[in-house]
Amino acid sequence: MTVELISVGTEILLGNIVNTNAAFLSEKLAALGLSCYHQSVVGDNEERLTDTLKLALSRSDIVILSGGLGPTKDDLTKEVTAKVFGKELYEDAHTRERIQEYFDRLNRKGMITENNWKQAMVPEGAIVIDNHNGTAPGIILEGENGKTAILLPGPPNEIKPMFENDIAPYLNRLQPEGIYSKMVKICSIGESRAETMVADLMEQQSNPTLAPYAKTGEVHFRVTAKAKDQETADQLMQPVLDELFRRFGNNIYTTEETVTLEEAVVNLLKEKNMTVTTAESCTAGLLAGRIMNVPGASDVYNEGYITYSNDSKMKLVGVQEETLNQYGPVSVETAYEMAVGAARAAGSEAAVSVTGYAGPDGGADGKPAGLVYVGCCVGDKVRVEEFRFSGNRNKNRDYAVVRALTILREELL
Amino acid sequence: MTVELISVGTEILLGNIVNTNAAFLSEKLAALGLSCYHQSVVGDNEERLTDTLKLALSRSDIVILSGGLGPTKDDLTKEVTAKVFGKELYEDAHTRERIQEYFDRLNRKGMITENNWKQAMVPEGAIVIDNHNGTAPGIILEGENGKTAILLPGPPNEIKPMFENDIAPYLNRLQPEGIYSKMVKICSIGESRAETMVADLMEQQSNPTLAPYAKTGEVHFRVTAKAKDQETADQLMQPVLDELFRRFGNNIYTTEETVTLEEAVVNLLKEKNMTVTTAESCTAGLLAGRIMNVPGASDVYNEGYITYSNDSKMKLVGVQEETLNQYGPVSVETAYEMAVGAARAAGSEAAVSVTGYAGPDGGADGKPAGLVYVGCCVGDKVRVEEFRFSGNRNKNRDYAVVRALTILREELL
Repeated sequence: MTVELISVGTEILLGNIVNTNAAFLSEKLAALGLSCYHQSVVGDNEERLTDTLKLALSRSDIVILSGGLGPTKDDLTKEVTAKVFGKELYEDAHTRERIQEYFDRLNRKGMITENNWKQAMVPEGAIVIDNHNGTAPGIILEGENGKTAILLPGPPNEIKPMFENDIAPYLNRLQPEGIYSKMVKICSIGESRAETMVADLMEQQSNPTLAPYAKTGEVHFRVTAKAKDQETADQLMQPVLDELFRRFGNNIYTTEETVTLEEAVVNLLKEKNMTVTTAESCTAGLLAGRIMNVPGASDVYNEGYITYSNDSKMKLVGVQEETLNQYGPVSVETAYEMAVGAARAAGSEAAVSVTGYAGPDGGADGKPAGLVYVGCCVGDKVRVEEFRFSGNRNKNRDYAVVRALTILREELL
Repeated sequence: MTVELISVGTEILLGNIVNTNAAFLSEKLAALGLSCYHQSVVGDNEERLTDTLKLALSRSDIVILSGGLGPTKDDLTKEVTAKVFGKELYEDAHTRERIQEYFDRLNRKGMITENNWKQAMVPEGAIVIDNHNGTAPGIILEGENGKTAILLPGPPNEIKPMFENDIAPYLNRLQPEGIYSKMVKICSIGESRAETMVADLMEQQSNPTLAPYAKTGEVHFRVTAKAKDQETADQLMQPVLDELFRRFGNNIYTTEETVTLEEAVVNLLKEKNMTVTTAESCTAGLLAGRIMNVPGASDVYNEGYITYSNDSKMKLVGVQEETLNQYGPVSVETAYEMAVGAARAAGSEAAVSVTGYAGPDGGADGKPAGLVYVGCCVGDKVRVEEFRFSGNRNKNRDYAVVRALTILREELL
């Protein structure tokens, strides 16, 4: 079964926003085992939208349209789709009620305009999907020719839950067998090495399949099985998961889609009943900020230090003046003392330090841009690693943060 | 003149990467005054790429294809385009030499494979654009029917400089008049209010035009003039810029495309010869990390504090225990003492503090998620602002960082 995407919106054509919905939908469709050969973007224009939709329906089984479901006259997706399918629009009483409740819930009753009721209009015979995060409902329109259009709202916080909760199960039911997957997330190992380590598994795959996804400093493998139910899928996937665990060991930090590296680290700290602190120079708070992405991270993190100047490295985390003079602020020795000193200052069981030249300039001492040291102390054990990154300033800082999380995780294990 | 985009790459169809190139090109084309009504994504498949290109050429004057110019057999963009235009490929001696030099420069001479010379093949009659950041050249192919295809490499660090340096001037030359623009970036004022404030200017516009671009917590207006040269364009734009400055005053922090809010703040600190520090609770380092995005920020920032726990607020930045007990950690009073205490602890002339409930949970004291206080002290003056954000945890933290930078800028002025 083939699926095609049409993103509707002048703001995408003008480059005002990046089309992240298309990337989100594409990844989800691939995970469902559906083939997507075409994606289009078109503005809120009746003629061009009609042509684009007709072309898509001529070459794909299912067309997913996102955007253009708003309350204004400019929003045409529903009207155009109904016309192409030869259906009239009528006001759906349930949707009208839901929109009313939505405004009531936000205490914005007075803000409903006549326009909003346009969003309660749906094509005859359509399946209407409630939107729990906005007013425009989702719409599934099954044509008599076996072709289907699925209309979804544009805002990411509306389309994502609607796709996950309603559209993915709908698509899965259309297939003779369901698609089930696990995301095996790996740190500590580079992308090309990780792929080499499983090249044989990727080659001999059929059901389940194995596909790599590169993220900054991490490698994710999606294991996907086609099966009649979750239990059969789990049985098919288990040998591959076992084999991946045999090869990557505890470099695998999760097999859950939604778990992030920082979340895995925070969970590990909670399990061990430990707190962590950070002393950051070149990353200047990005590492702490990322740990604190995790709701509830306050259980494992109390305070941290941004030690950009030499003085602050001495004052806040007790680096020795002699160390800075002899080895420089970007050195194994300084990273070591920053980690140990931060743990002591914060009274925490673990600490991570980052010091480096993020670029574009290197050090006055001739050390190059991209040179970064990560220090980590857990209990009595201290470890320092050297990295030489070759990206720009922001890339180097992002990589340093991932390496720091990875090393902390390794030391906690 | 109409331009259409085709992004070539299975990795986009699978959702492995987000199509940021399309957003980049769209914004640049709009800034050049060119109309883009269609964008497509297609995989590395000869038949589908041929169909997509033919359709695009039938409805647009210029088609920009990005991606699929790599050295492997899968990469087909050049081959398909040459065929559609009825041109043969030949080896371009200059490009062969440039590829050789590229590998030499990176000390990767031994890594050239026979495949790489495929990248030196270009269609007869094409304009070849040197790639200074990779091996695949850009190609402009002008058909006899007045239609043009422009082929650009996929990696963002290759396509962006090539577009700016070579393609934008080429496109500008095709037009009777050139397009010149300024980006007026505004903070301290919300999107809808800012648009209302210039609704009359947007209505009466023709040359120059005025278009809004929303960024998290900021509003950008692009002023675009059509003119025979830069000087004439400047004369056309000046009255609009003057009017914008009259209405927004120093809420405009730059009129330069590349200057960010944090850069404007760092420059202001440098001008005033002041240093700043940060005390962050819910943003936990993100504000400091953003200030340090700016190369050379070390001149104005020495150290900072992540004060997540109550203890750390007392210990690191001297918040009174009584204040925390009486008003709570998320309060005007705590934000005030955090800012004043941070400036004192760091010995800096300015300080910014952030304390709030980022979500998903609010405080044990019943205060809601999204409640954030930003404190700012510059010299003797202290100011605290309350915000109630309604996004998720990460959105709320991002907004808090922008608000903190905005308030710091206002107080510095």
